[in-house]
Amino acid sequence: MTHTAWLDALSRQLGPQGLWRPGVEADAAQLHAHEVDWRGRYHGRALALARPASVAEVVTVVQACAAQGVAIVPQGGNTSLVGGSVPDGSGQQLVLNLQRLNQVISIDAANLSMVVQSGCLLSQVQAAAQTEGLLFPLSLASEGSCTIGGNLASNAGGTQVLRYGTARALCLGLQVVTPQGQVLDGLSALRKDNTGYDLRDLYIGSEGTLGIITAASLRLHPQPRGVATALLACEDLSQAVALLQMAHHHLDAGLTAFEVMARGPLALVQQHQAPAAAALSPLLDPRGAPPEWVVLIENTSCESDAHAQERLQLLLTQAMTLNLTQGVVVATQTRQRQQMWQLREGIPQAEKCEGLMVKHDIGMPTSEIPRFVTEVGQALQARWPQSQVVCFGHLGDGNLHYNVQPPADARQGLALEDFERAVNTLVFDAVERCQGTLSAEHGIGQLRREELAQRASPVALQMMQAIKKAIDPAGLMNPGRVLR
Amino acid sequence: MTHTAWLDALSRQLGPQGLWRPGVEADAAQLHAHEVDWRGRYHGRALALARPASVAEVVTVVQACAAQGVAIVPQGGNTSLVGGSVPDGSGQQLVLNLQRLNQVISIDAANLSMVVQSGCLLSQVQAAAQTEGLLFPLSLASEGSCTIGGNLASNAGGTQVLRYGTARALCLGLQVVTPQGQVLDGLSALRKDNTGYDLRDLYIGSEGTLGIITAASLRLHPQPRGVATALLACEDLSQAVALLQMAHHHLDAGLTAFEVMARGPLALVQQHQAPAAAALSPLLDPRGAPPEWVVLIENTSCESDAHAQERLQLLLTQAMTLNLTQGVVVATQTRQRQQMWQLREGIPQAEKCEGLMVKHDIGMPTSEIPRFVTEVGQALQARWPQSQVVCFGHLGDGNLHYNVQPPADARQGLALEDFERAVNTLVFDAVERCQGTLSAEHGIGQLRREELAQRASPVALQMMQAIKKAIDPAGLMNPGRVLR
Repeated sequence: MTHTAWLDALSRQLGPQGLWRPGVEADAAQLHAHEVDWRGRYHGRALALARPASVAEVVTVVQACAAQGVAIVPQGGNTSLVGGSVPDGSGQQLVLNLQRLNQVISIDAANLSMVVQSGCLLSQVQAAAQTEGLLFPLSLASEGSCTIGGNLASNAGGTQVLRYGTARALCLGLQVVTPQGQVLDGLSALRKDNTGYDLRDLYIGSEGTLGIITAASLRLHPQPRGVATALLACEDLSQAVALLQMAHHHLDAGLTAFEVMARGPLALVQQHQAPAAAALSPLLDPRGAPPEWVVLIENTSCESDAHAQERLQLLLTQAMTLNLTQGVVVATQTRQRQQMWQLREGIPQAEKCEGLMVKHDIGMPTSEIPRFVTEVGQALQARWPQSQVVCFGHLGDGNLHYNVQPPADARQGLALEDFERAVNTLVFDAVERCQGTLSAEHGIGQLRREELAQRASPVALQMMQAIKKAIDPAGLMNPGRVLR
Repeated sequence: MTHTAWLDALSRQLGPQGLWRPGVEADAAQLHAHEVDWRGRYHGRALALARPASVAEVVTVVQACAAQGVAIVPQGGNTSLVGGSVPDGSGQQLVLNLQRLNQVISIDAANLSMVVQSGCLLSQVQAAAQTEGLLFPLSLASEGSCTIGGNLASNAGGTQVLRYGTARALCLGLQVVTPQGQVLDGLSALRKDNTGYDLRDLYIGSEGTLGIITAASLRLHPQPRGVATALLACEDLSQAVALLQMAHHHLDAGLTAFEVMARGPLALVQQHQAPAAAALSPLLDPRGAPPEWVVLIENTSCESDAHAQERLQLLLTQAMTLNLTQGVVVATQTRQRQQMWQLREGIPQAEKCEGLMVKHDIGMPTSEIPRFVTEVGQALQARWPQSQVVCFGHLGDGNLHYNVQPPADARQGLALEDFERAVNTLVFDAVERCQGTLSAEHGIGQLRREELAQRASPVALQMMQAIKKAIDPAGLMNPGRVLR
C-alpha cells in the first residue's frame, strides 16, 4: 500500500481529530509545533500527526504502523532538551502525540497512589494530588507544558530529586503499548512486587524506543506542613559540598533542595532579569557583585513552618561557626522564598539573552565536583580565554548544568561546530575521569546519541542493543534515538 | 570434553579452594549446605561448587561453563525462601558461590555511598556503613547469613522499606558478569544518570537468571539520632489502615516501620516463645489473650530520642481520641524497644514449632487489605474449619505474610499437596481481585514459577522471555528459576 492510501485508511479509523495529515487536516503551521524541538535545534517533517484519544486508538495506530513499516515518534508536550520527541527530516516518520489521553483516572489516598493517563500535563497531576491533600513531588521548569508520559519516558529529574527521587522513584506501574500493538498492563499500585523482571524501570528512561507509555500509577507523598528556604554565600565549591554533607545529617529527609549557582550565572540574572535578582541583594559585595557561589537550601517539615525554620537556622548557625559560609539570608515570608526560587529559575532565561551556549547536563559523585569545576574551568580558560562558563545546578544530586559561552569568533557556522565538539570532548573527558555521566537528567535523544555510542561501555551498549532488538525487532519505535 | 575432564581443567585454574568437586575437594556433608534450601524444601545435587575469589575467577568459571554448556546456579548465603539458589537434582548444574568475594571496597561519606563485593554479608555491609556514622538501612531476619548480592538479585525487602525502599532503591550501580563471561561495569555512584536503558534495575530482582552480580555501589543514609517505638491494639484491620494513613501525614519520612500481627501469631509466640511475648503483656485482656490485631510502629528523628517520642505521642493521642486504637504501649527504653521487635521477630520461630504451614508472601494496595483478610479468612474457615491462619507482615508496604496451617487430616503426603494447591488457588485468586502480587518480597525462584506462568499477563511473560533469550540465549543462567 502507498503511504497515502495507508494514511487514508488510518484517517477513516481515527477521524479528523485523530489524524492530522499535512495539508489535509492540518496546515504547516499547525504541524510545526510538533516537528521542531523546544530548543529549536532539530527541524523535522512528519508523515502525519496521530492524536489518539484512547488506549484502543493508540493500539490501532501502532498496529497500522507495524503492518506498514512506518516508524513512530512518540510525543508528549514536546519539551525534550535532547531532540527526543520530533521526527527526522525524511517526512516518513509518524508523530504519535498523547496529549488527548489526559484523564486523571483515580486517586487512592489511603494507598498514597494515583493513576493517570500519560498525556496529563505534569502540573495537572500535581494539582490533582493537591486536591486530595497529597503531594506529587516531581517539579521542573516545563511542568506547565510537559506531560507525565514524557517525564517517565525520559526519567525526568528536577528540583526535588534529593528527597523524592527522579520520575522512576515516583512511579509504581505503567501501562504500555508494545511495538507489536499489544497492551502491557502493569498499572500496579504496589510498593513491593517481586514477580519477574522489572519491565517498569526498563520502560522508564527508554525515551519511547521500546513502546508507548499510555498510563501510569504514581506514588504520592504527604504534603509537608512547613518549609524554610535560605541562600548562602560560599567562597568555593568545597564549602558547598561540606555544607551539603552537614545538611544531610542535620535535616535528613527534610532536605528537599540543595541548588548551587556560580557568580557567572548570577551576574547574568542581574543583567538580564533584574527583578529575579532581588533575593540576591543581601549577599552582594560593596560593588554590587554576587559571591563566588550561592547555595539555595530548602528544608521541609511535617510539623510547621516554625519547625522547618528552627531546624534550618540551627544548621546555618553551625555552618557559620565552622566558617562554611560567608553570608546567609533566610526567607521568613512566602514572597521571599518565591524570590529565591526566581533567582534560581531566572538563570536559563538570562542565559537565553546571551545567545547560544554549549550546554551540558552532567553528573558525578558530589565529592568529585569541586575538583571537576576547578580543573575544567582552568582548561577552558587556557584554551579559549574569551569563553565564559555558566555553572549551576542540583548539587544535592551531583548534577550540574555546565554551559559554556563561545568566544565572539566562534559563535556561528563551522567555527561554532568546532568549538562545540572541542568543548564537549574536554568536558566529557573530565566527566569520565570523575566517573560521572554525560546525561544526568535530560536523556540521550538525538543530541547525545553519538557520545553515548563512543563513551558508554561496549558491554552495556551491546546489551541495550540486544534488548532493543528483542522488544522492537522491526526498529520502528523512535528510531535513531538513544541508540544508533 | 567429558564433564570430569572439564572439571579437572577448571580445578587447575581455580585451585583446591576455588572448586569443590564432590568426593574430591569436598565430601557430601560439606556440599549439602549448598544443595538444600533454607526451608528444606528443595534437595538438589551439584555437579561441583565453584568458589571464585575474584571477579576474574568468576569470569573464568562463567566462560568455562559457556564453552561446555554447563548451567550455573549463582549462590550467596543460600537463604532464598523460594528455592532460588540451590541446584536441581540432576547433578549437572554448577553452583557458583560468591561468599569469597567479601570485601568492602570503598566508602564515600561525602557522596553517601559505598562499593562492596557481592559476597559481603548484609550485616557486614551495615556494620561498615555504621563505622562511618552512616546507615545502610536494608534489614531483614537473615541479615547475619544472607549476602548483599543475593539481596540485590532478589530485590529484598524487610522491615524498613516504608521509609528507605527495597534493595533496588538502595543500589546506585552494579558490576555484573554476563552469561557470555563479560564484565558489565556499572559501579556508578550517581543519583541521576539517564544514559540509556536501566540495566541495573533489570538485574536487580532477576534472581541470577541474566548474569552474576559481583559488586554493587550502594546508597547510604544519615543515621537517625532518635527513635521511638510503640505497640497499638486494634479491633480490626480497618483501624490499622486508618492509623497508617494518619501516621504518614503526621510523621512523614520519620515513619520507618508499620508492622501488623494478628491474634493468631501472637498467641503462638505466647505459647512457644514466651520470653519474646513480654512486650505484649500490657495489651492482654483479663484472660491473658492478645488483642485481635497489634501494630508495631516506629518513628525516627534526625534530632533526638525525645523528639521522636514527642511526635509519636502526638500521633498516638490523636489515634486514641479518634478511637482508632484500644490500647497503646510506648517503649521508653532501648530494652523495651528491643522486646517489641522480639515479639514481631518471634513469629516465624513460633510458627516453626507448629509444623508445616502453607506460606504466602503477598502484597496489595493497603486500602484493599482489610477486605482481603476478612473475605479470605471466611472462605478458608468455611472450607477447612480446622485450618488456622497466621497473618502478619509489613502493613506499611501492603505486604502480608499470610500463612495457613493445615487441619490435622491434611498435614502430610498427597492430602497436604492437595490442601496446598487448593489454598494457593483460593489465596491467589483473591490477591488477583485486589490487584495484588503473589510475591511481594521473596521472589519467584522455583516455588512460584508455575503460578507466575499461569497468572502473570501473557504480554509481560512474553517480554520477559524475549529479554531472557536476548541476554542469555544459551539458557545457562539459573535455568528454571523465575521463568519456565
